[in-house]
Amino acid sequence: MSTDASISAKIPVAILGPTGYTGLELIEIIARHPRMRVAFLGSARTPAPRIDVEFPRLAGRLGEGVRAECEAIDHDAIAQRCRLAFLCLPHEAAMEHTPPLLARGVKVVDLSAAYRLRDAAVYEQAYGHPHTDAANLERAVYGLTEFARERVRGAELVANPGCYPTVAALALIPLLRAGLIAPESIIISAASGVSGAGRAAKPNLHFPEANENFSAYGIGVHRHQPEIGQSLRDFGFGAEGREARPTKTLSALFVPHLLPVERGILETIYAQPTSAGVDTARVQACLRERYDVERFVTVRDDAPTLRDVLRTNMVQLNARVVQRCVVVVGAEDNLVKGASGQAVQNANLMLGVAEAEGL
Amino acid sequence: MSTDASISAKIPVAILGPTGYTGLELIEIIARHPRMRVAFLGSARTPAPRIDVEFPRLAGRLGEGVRAECEAIDHDAIAQRCRLAFLCLPHEAAMEHTPPLLARGVKVVDLSAAYRLRDAAVYEQAYGHPHTDAANLERAVYGLTEFARERVRGAELVANPGCYPTVAALALIPLLRAGLIAPESIIISAASGVSGAGRAAKPNLHFPEANENFSAYGIGVHRHQPEIGQSLRDFGFGAEGREARPTKTLSALFVPHLLPVERGILETIYAQPTSAGVDTARVQACLRERYDVERFVTVRDDAPTLRDVLRTNMVQLNARVVQRCVVVVGAEDNLVKGASGQAVQNANLMLGVAEAEGL
Amino acid sequence: MSTDASISAKIPVAILGPTGYTGLELIEIIARHPRMRVAFLGSARTPAPRIDVEFPRLAGRLGEGVRAECEAIDHDAIAQRCRLAFLCLPHEAAMEHTPPLLARGVKVVDLSAAYRLRDAAVYEQAYGHPHTDAANLERAVYGLTEFARERVRGAELVANPGCYPTVAALALIPLLRAGLIAPESIIISAASGVSGAGRAAKPNLHFPEANENFSAYGIGVHRHQPEIGQSLRDFGFGAEGREARPTKTLSALFVPHLLPVERGILETIYAQPTSAGVDTARVQACLRERYDVERFVTVRDDAPTLRDVLRTNMVQLNARVVQRCVVVVGAEDNLVKGASGQAVQNANLMLGVAEAEGL
Amino acid sequence: MSTDASISAKIPVAILGPTGYTGLELIEIIARHPRMRVAFLGSARTPAPRIDVEFPRLAGRLGEGVRAECEAIDHDAIAQRCRLAFLCLPHEAAMEHTPPLLARGVKVVDLSAAYRLRDAAVYEQAYGHPHTDAANLERAVYGLTEFARERVRGAELVANPGCYPTVAALALIPLLRAGLIAPESIIISAASGVSGAGRAAKPNLHFPEANENFSAYGIGVHRHQPEIGQSLRDFGFGAEGREARPTKTLSALFVPHLLPVERGILETIYAQPTSAGVDTARVQACLRERYDVERFVTVRDDAPTLRDVLRTNMVQLNARVVQRCVVVVGAEDNLVKGASGQAVQNANLMLGVAEAEGL
Repeated sequence: MSTDASISAKIPVAILGPTGYTGLELIEIIARHPRMRVAFLGSARTPAPRIDVEFPRLAGRLGEGVRAECEAIDHDAIAQRCRLAFLCLPHEAAMEHTPPLLARGVKVVDLSAAYRLRDAAVYEQAYGHPHTDAANLERAVYGLTEFARERVRGAELVANPGCYPTVAALALIPLLRAGLIAPESIIISAASGVSGAGRAAKPNLHFPEANENFSAYGIGVHRHQPEIGQSLRDFGFGAEGREARPTKTLSALFVPHLLPVERGILETIYAQPTSAGVDTARVQACLRERYDVERFVTVRDDAPTLRDVLRTNMVQLNARVVQRCVVVVGAEDNLVKGASGQAVQNANLMLGVAEAEGL
Repeated sequence: MSTDASISAKIPVAILGPTGYTGLELIEIIARHPRMRVAFLGSARTPAPRIDVEFPRLAGRLGEGVRAECEAIDHDAIAQRCRLAFLCLPHEAAMEHTPPLLARGVKVVDLSAAYRLRDAAVYEQAYGHPHTDAANLERAVYGLTEFARERVRGAELVANPGCYPTVAALALIPLLRAGLIAPESIIISAASGVSGAGRAAKPNLHFPEANENFSAYGIGVHRHQPEIGQSLRDFGFGAEGREARPTKTLSALFVPHLLPVERGILETIYAQPTSAGVDTARVQACLRERYDVERFVTVRDDAPTLRDVLRTNMVQLNARVVQRCVVVVGAEDNLVKGASGQAVQNANLMLGVAEAEGL
Repeated sequence: MSTDASISAKIPVAILGPTGYTGLELIEIIARHPRMRVAFLGSARTPAPRIDVEFPRLAGRLGEGVRAECEAIDHDAIAQRCRLAFLCLPHEAAMEHTPPLLARGVKVVDLSAAYRLRDAAVYEQAYGHPHTDAANLERAVYGLTEFARERVRGAELVANPGCYPTVAALALIPLLRAGLIAPESIIISAASGVSGAGRAAKPNLHFPEANENFSAYGIGVHRHQPEIGQSLRDFGFGAEGREARPTKTLSALFVPHLLPVERGILETIYAQPTSAGVDTARVQACLRERYDVERFVTVRDDAPTLRDVLRTNMVQLNARVVQRCVVVVGAEDNLVKGASGQAVQNANLMLGVAEAEGL
Repeated sequence: MSTDASISAKIPVAILGPTGYTGLELIEIIARHPRMRVAFLGSARTPAPRIDVEFPRLAGRLGEGVRAECEAIDHDAIAQRCRLAFLCLPHEAAMEHTPPLLARGVKVVDLSAAYRLRDAAVYEQAYGHPHTDAANLERAVYGLTEFARERVRGAELVANPGCYPTVAALALIPLLRAGLIAPESIIISAASGVSGAGRAAKPNLHFPEANENFSAYGIGVHRHQPEIGQSLRDFGFGAEGREARPTKTLSALFVPHLLPVERGILETIYAQPTSAGVDTARVQACLRERYDVERFVTVRDDAPTLRDVLRTNMVQLNARVVQRCVVVVGAEDNLVKGASGQAVQNANLMLGVAEAEGL
């Protein structure tokens, strides 16, 4: 924990819904952040918990000036004390609290799926409940930082990308833009640690069930399937940002699996090359060209493993052509680059702080 | 699965409460048992589940003639079809179903704690609810097979020992009987896999919490503490069986820990030697002398590991004297010798079958 | 362990190379087998180890009459005592010991890859050393039991299939035969527990490296790639057995991954349907029609998980059509159906014992 | 990673032996440290490795100005560029490199055991090789920071405490000083993650062996046994520092266990209270009184779990009296407070930086 910066010099932020895994991760990241501090921990639970009782690992490690007692979510109090709020809430609660926070001038980074899909109807079908704040869908910037940097910088509301879609998008966008892979041929075979399913105990996530196990789930019908499709369509065919999105259709099959590990996502992505001239050298060069300037994306000569990215904000990528198929392997930590790390990366931009600060 | 014996030659038994981990283990053991078959799967759940839906690993593996559909617990039907019932029920339900089954001539092996503690008052304090069948406490035989073989053979009701107490008793009884360790000095530092906590999902057993974790719990106040005390007092000071129990007091501190594994118990037991002459050779010889005749207890030259006993009905033991302390390490599979395996071992005796059959 | 059959009534077999994981698994399976017993444990190590020192879990559990001391591999002694030998040896050693055993009338089930690939040149390219017993390649029967039953029954030498190829073949052969999937479109994304890599300690399999990790390896160049191709070509286009193999080409991309679990293989297989009429109902019906008669293959309504098949000889399958793609999920235990279990299944047939005996 | 401080403002340090787990941990800690930077990575391997090839997770994350190429260990070059060196070397190599570094004015924090035991004869017995730099034993300060702060501040050479001894000492010293526990009655039953055994692959640490396993090892004869004894004798009976050490004897039995986790140590410590008046309130108060001022030691109302301290520099403690026994549970991360974290804590003091900086 840095003791350099005086508290007053740090930008105060709120975390709403801090008792889940993304909340914990945010608290730990911000406790080390030289330019940001937690000024409000807002919980919907009654009574509001002490965060260091909820997570005993935070005892004595909350960062300077952070109160362990969570508070009820009070928009005025948040606006008074904070310039930005991270929402680690259920989707419905995110739609409830975003409008009053924006109205009070508080910037929002929403880690739920509430503002990720531009089309409310698509959202409602995927998530099974009505979208109650369609008005702000236009305003929301999809925060895939590496491809939306300028828009994020000016955003009031950032929809932080889903964990699986982040890897898929970073792996595929450059190859799609360069026309190296056939858009209709993409198969994303992905695997995630159990923290991706949240902190609530469930029968299939009970230790004796999830341990020494591995399974496919939501085969072709997972909620992240439409988000991946939108992201690839938005960013995969033109220049950066939404305005460039074409009318091209793109269909990607997404099959997630559950790994017996705490965290991390590894995606093995298959696609048909668009011509016989597409070889390993070309797909690797394509990724390198795009990502050599990026601090949080590394293109490797060999395939990354899950462990290589755990507890970092990195995505590591490797592409090759083998047996007439393009195979891209991508890895990230679902709680960092796939959630709280990317959220801080976006918040840094929104607050005028160096993008990599604290990460 | 044996196809040798015709179904009719096998002894029909019931399993009540088959949807927990001890139930699953029993089904798998009995499916391979050459002399026993499951003739009744009784569940209190409404509607009664299909066992191969509950446990998809049983699909096609139930054993000949076993119906996948569980039935409501019907004492008459059980008595009509079965000679013995294994009770894998909650303690309260075990006390409810045992009397009517015994009344109908069905022998009972109870895997709950209902009949383990002879003193109903001790039971009520440890388990926090009234004992509703104190009448049968006298009748129940505590089924620590190696020390109660003859009584088990004649028993109508066997209280199958707890998982932790089984290892502790087998490790300590010979040393106590031989007067090699001080009864008041015993410390049992034990560790168990998560299956010991049952199949219900709980926050602390959620995979991301229990994984990569290790913790002490119930320090000195665990429910198995009085059972261990009773077992050591009953068997530790005289000849076999309860009648030999002395009035000696014995206090053992029991500290269980939760391991990030599915199954298995390892106990590291500390006790003061009664004299300077008690050395490694004497404690090992003492254990070997007692257990050389036992099929399911192995005394080793080196300390056993958890993995050495997984999915076996064995207890492996090693004792030594080091730094003026007797240290015994004992291992078992909590679901086999610590539950369903020992239950079958007892049932074999009760039914006149060779003790090791099917194990 | 069965005590029914007298030792003399059991068929004596040898295990050569019993100190690896497939050897251990064979010993444990045969110890419970009512019709087979281990009469020779042959090790190339000097001095030959005691098997219960090598695997302390075998102490007191070797089965009746089994000597714990391994012996040097002596073909005459094996022929004198055994009717069949399981070879759990390195590929090169398997090619060395098979001819003298066959010459002495000992049947052989070879668990190495030595006799799996019919073409010695393909073998040499995949395994990087010369094939030193090409003469017996013709004689070897590829022991994918469900599709080679009759040939196995009459075989002197069975090449036991590889762990990954077993699942892939059982999942795909019926769909290929029925013309439901495009042969050139198959992608096999597979994941295996670490025991599949053998018992020798290696840096990437060191616990702190493999734990909490997941990685793709041998992408498109794994040794099982040609075996899978051969198996699908042999069995995927006609009636049972090799003689039916067409000249059709078939290319399947095989991408294995390493799971942080001890054992088990889960394969998620992608293929293009051959027409718009191929839907979930048709692919499931196709699998069911083929496997309803098979004891060791189960077709499920939902996707199997790894845990559902651990320590069983089962393959569980589920197929569906989603997003215009056929997705088949298959699971097996790599050490049982993927190795020692299928080896016993084959040996049962070769010895005239009921196929499922002891499994 | 902080981008605030200019490189020149950070204190340059060397890490010798960076390719093990403590080296990796140091690199990651220092990359986030606002006042320290790695200016030399010295490896004895030929050719010297690239650290981001050795640990792919470091790619792009080494910290500003850090060269990925390790260099041969050159004392002059180190002295020219660095003010302090962390030695993550084998014991023998630490004794070889420490004298020339000290001679050139480079401060040393040695993470090996080379300088921990004041008595070279005790060292030689425990570690099985000669002590080749006994001259510096007097000079070395045993860096149990919380009890040696002032001596560390002035030290040129700090012997960083062992992982197990750190927890045991912090748990027991206040209780011993207060006379609440009997010195001759201490039993330390400890468990560690596999990273504590180092990065070299070994048969018993092969994933399929260590996974789902738990075992006691080095029972009463572990190398940390004499270090624990020395530490308790030095700090347990008087004021701070070595000079206060009495001639009292103290014997503690130390029994470590191997956990199937990557990292973390949990110790469950048993001791006899010195009087009937020693109860839970008194032992807890004793610990709280000592540690309320300490940033890296937390005394909790309930027992800490391993997970509560992972990847933190904390030791969490809880003490109670139950069944007439004092039971203390203590937890730390073996690679942080048990190694690299405490090393940085000590280095901060030696370099005049705030003790908690970067931790």
